[in-house]
Amino acid sequence: MPAHDAVEVILAKRDKHELTDSQIDWVIDSYTRGEVADEQMSALAMAILLNGMNRTEISRWTAAMIASGERMDFSTLSRPTADKHSTGGVGDKITLPLAPLVAACGVAVPQLSGRGLGHTGGTLDKLESIPGWRADLGNEEMVAILEEVGAVICAAGEGLAPADKKLYALRDVTGTVEAIPLIASSIMSKKIAEGTGALVLDVKVGSGAFMKDVDSARELAETMVGLGTDAGVHTVALLTDMATPLGLTAGNAIEVAESVEVLAGGGPADVVELTLALAREMLAGAGRGDVDPADKLADGSAMDAWKAMIRAQGGDPDAALPEARESHVVTAPSSGTLTRLDAMAVGMAAWRLGAGRARKEDPVQAGAGVVWHARPGDEVTEGEPLFTLLSDEPARFERALASLEGGYDIGSGGDGADRATPGDIVLERIG
Amino acid sequence: MPAHDAVEVILAKRDKHELTDSQIDWVIDSYTRGEVADEQMSALAMAILLNGMNRTEISRWTAAMIASGERMDFSTLSRPTADKHSTGGVGDKITLPLAPLVAACGVAVPQLSGRGLGHTGGTLDKLESIPGWRADLGNEEMVAILEEVGAVICAAGEGLAPADKKLYALRDVTGTVEAIPLIASSIMSKKIAEGTGALVLDVKVGSGAFMKDVDSARELAETMVGLGTDAGVHTVALLTDMATPLGLTAGNAIEVAESVEVLAGGGPADVVELTLALAREMLAGAGRGDVDPADKLADGSAMDAWKAMIRAQGGDPDAALPEARESHVVTAPSSGTLTRLDAMAVGMAAWRLGAGRARKEDPVQAGAGVVWHARPGDEVTEGEPLFTLLSDEPARFERALASLEGGYDIGSGGDGADRATPGDIVLERIG
Repeated sequence: MPAHDAVEVILAKRDKHELTDSQIDWVIDSYTRGEVADEQMSALAMAILLNGMNRTEISRWTAAMIASGERMDFSTLSRPTADKHSTGGVGDKITLPLAPLVAACGVAVPQLSGRGLGHTGGTLDKLESIPGWRADLGNEEMVAILEEVGAVICAAGEGLAPADKKLYALRDVTGTVEAIPLIASSIMSKKIAEGTGALVLDVKVGSGAFMKDVDSARELAETMVGLGTDAGVHTVALLTDMATPLGLTAGNAIEVAESVEVLAGGGPADVVELTLALAREMLAGAGRGDVDPADKLADGSAMDAWKAMIRAQGGDPDAALPEARESHVVTAPSSGTLTRLDAMAVGMAAWRLGAGRARKEDPVQAGAGVVWHARPGDEVTEGEPLFTLLSDEPARFERALASLEGGYDIGSGGDGADRATPGDIVLERIG
Repeated sequence: MPAHDAVEVILAKRDKHELTDSQIDWVIDSYTRGEVADEQMSALAMAILLNGMNRTEISRWTAAMIASGERMDFSTLSRPTADKHSTGGVGDKITLPLAPLVAACGVAVPQLSGRGLGHTGGTLDKLESIPGWRADLGNEEMVAILEEVGAVICAAGEGLAPADKKLYALRDVTGTVEAIPLIASSIMSKKIAEGTGALVLDVKVGSGAFMKDVDSARELAETMVGLGTDAGVHTVALLTDMATPLGLTAGNAIEVAESVEVLAGGGPADVVELTLALAREMLAGAGRGDVDPADKLADGSAMDAWKAMIRAQGGDPDAALPEARESHVVTAPSSGTLTRLDAMAVGMAAWRLGAGRARKEDPVQAGAGVVWHARPGDEVTEGEPLFTLLSDEPARFERALASLEGGYDIGSGGDGADRATPGDIVLERIG
């Protein structure tokens, strides 16, 4: 590899030049090996955030991060693979019903997930509320479960894209998270290294999402679809609404319970709608567009796949889920139509109740969270329950209530609600 | 001091907001104490470089760097004080004749200088070629010499603006040197903390200077004059030409010898011109505009002050200066007028001959450097000496010669020369 110099690479991006392939390969490799210092990489990250990278640069940057670690290989499996990634939202439990549903349709789902940080929950945190379930699997164990059950949701191993792991931790403390080239390459390096054949990206838009407006969400989605396509992964993105939280729950055990309702053929309409939309894209990407996933919810085979998946990772799918020790009910202050329910307000409340963590070493409460009893468009009656707050620590209620203040509107019937009817959740399809 | 958070401060500047006084005070103080990490400060420095700071922010940033350390106080001296700072040029030995000249006019010059890095030389490196001379003085010793001799040129102590020392080292390795707010606050924090009453800034413009064009040099000069004025220091800046190197020598001992020629009433016209121009500004700033420094060169009193100053710091002003072990003469390839002599080419050659250093721990050669035998506008004759290269190591000649290639033009008489006549060296006055 030709030798470069960290300052040379920083100056190139600072002065708005295109980084060469050789500069990108060198800086990622040298940073992973500790030869480019954190203070140099953070200056480069800030220059990238402010001056951007073009598609050629982002593609090479992603390839260099993949090359920093191992790649998984599912080519020995007897079925095609498809995966989904969500950029994170409030009440976003979709991975839980989705993975077994797609498995029930004959496509293997190798879902490497993370834990939550901040106001959006983590899939692993939710599943860990199931007694006995464990997130950490070896690569061989993962492949065996995939072959046998068809779906696995587990923690990403240390070996995938170590450059990304190191860079993400750095960006988190240096104000350089919100750079589309860096977000896109971070997500896609892990997904491409994971070796999935098809990938569906759920890019959230709105108050509860990382991307607050459709334009930036579209730019991120297009960038990621381009990266996946360049790497030979069949990639599609859906821009989906995150102005309003998904379903009726935000937390850990309560989101598992809601997911099980969906797998049983019920559940909130928006969760069902988004689960089916993502399942159809995953199936189409894996060449199984002929299968209708709605049938697999109706006939119980998705639920069977769920139970097998949970058992394969040591969990008891029939055990009672943990419940919070304390609850607090918020009643509707007036009668009328719920015209707005803000995802960020609900997400912050759930986080403050103990469902999420502020630092990555913090524990989460399995039973904590928020249940809302109405969705935008629903009628509410003064004095009837609007929210139920759940926590093991009653001292947390006050700050959670403060988060909810101003987070919803009740109007007279017929007001324009943010999303009064199902069918509005998928805003755009890119791919 | 109110508590802030490093990421909050970085995000504010990243997103083009004005930093508050409280944010600036906090981040400089916390960085000095090691509570804001290098990787956070480098991201902030890059955001400042790309998004700028306004005059209010730069002024506060400078004040916070001054507050990170001690301030010197020359109020006990029997005469007024004036200092000069140059942004660095090739063959820029002006401090050497200037300090004793101004002292001879009755104004004390407390000149805290640095060592060279890269293609521009360092004042202390030059003086250290004088046998016995030492750069490191304690504060009391410095004041005593100032009172007795009227001029002192020494290394800045560790106590002045330690935040700047730490930040400068960080900027050097993170591609964040070239930010006018950071350059201006770095220079001015040290000069204001030093406690001088008047200050003249020699802001170099051209190929051999840090600032390549007049607009950026003017912006830097105006920023620094504003900072000095706000801090109660009588501050003036001269923009001076650095397309062509100063005088006829670039090195260490050979620049001392050229300075002594000026003090003896001779020397190259441009060096004399710039020395007198800066001396007049320093005297005016210190309230002694009635004294003509040219008289002090003519009557030998500037030379007397020089000798006293060198002796006070252990040096022998009458000792022979070190000479390089090897020399190499470059002859003129054709006859005609020297129409261009590029300062950067000459500076790089001197550096490669051993007069400068690549890393701050490197030694320099006292005798190394470049002598040019003609200045733009002078006639040269084919086959006669044009440059003499000096070094202790003949292996260095080849790369030095490569630096000079393309660094000069010989044309027919009457071609437009960059600076054929004295009188053009001061481009603008700001103050």
